[in-house]
Amino acid sequence: MHGYMNVEAFKLTIETKEAHYWSRSRQSIWDKGKTSGFVQKVKEIRIDDDQDAVWMTVDIGEGSSCHVGYRSCFYRSVPLGKIDNAREIEMKFEEEEKKFDPEVVYKGQPNPTKI
Amino acid sequence: MHGYMNVEAFKLTIETKEAHYWSRSRQSIWDKGKTSGFVQKVKEIRIDDDQDAVWMTVDIGEGSSCHVGYRSCFYRSVPLGKIDNAREIEMKFEEEEKKFDPEVVYKGQPNPTKI
Repeated sequence: MHGYMNVEAFKLTIETKEAHYWSRSRQSIWDKGKTSGFVQKVKEIRIDDDQDAVWMTVDIGEGSSCHVGYRSCFYRSVPLGKIDNAREIEMKFEEEEKKFDPEVVYKGQPNPTKI
Repeated sequence: MHGYMNVEAFKLTIETKEAHYWSRSRQSIWDKGKTSGFVQKVKEIRIDDDQDAVWMTVDIGEGSSCHVGYRSCFYRSVPLGKIDNAREIEMKFEEEEKKFDPEVVYKGQPNPTKI
């Protein structure tokens, strides 16, 4: 998945060894897995040269990272080659089955993923 | 590495199978490797659920992705555990040697990485 952090989320992630993000839509700390149970246990944090991006390796066990229900948010690939319209590309599904039903897991709560 | 794309950069990447980005500092298409020769040959493009992030697997051969000289921009890790000040964390180098000398490769050009 791809998400955002502020200093507080970054500090919580380092200290608890569980991924925390900054929710731009809710304007609050996003304790990943608090609702769904799908906690991300941090194995390693890498930071880039100009220190505005981090790349984390996390253990999600048999869980999921994506609010749509797939294991990865990146469950589709984009075929390479000539295209006519970059705004209308047919994507290929790389995951066949959802790991959970978002309607059940996020029952009564608005799904933060707006598609 | 982490970078930005606009529709034109995305289309060029898909069609040429070589990574193109959008340089926010230069406000122009960034044909990765044009100066350094370190072209990124795209093996796979994944796109996330709400389609505002792509994750690419690229082949850089014996080259480098980072303007500082390391193979990866993420050449340092952040140790996990209790910290006193999230703005002053000692990082660990995960790559020991630079792959190239930025002063030679980007001779006479401002290095786009501001640290």
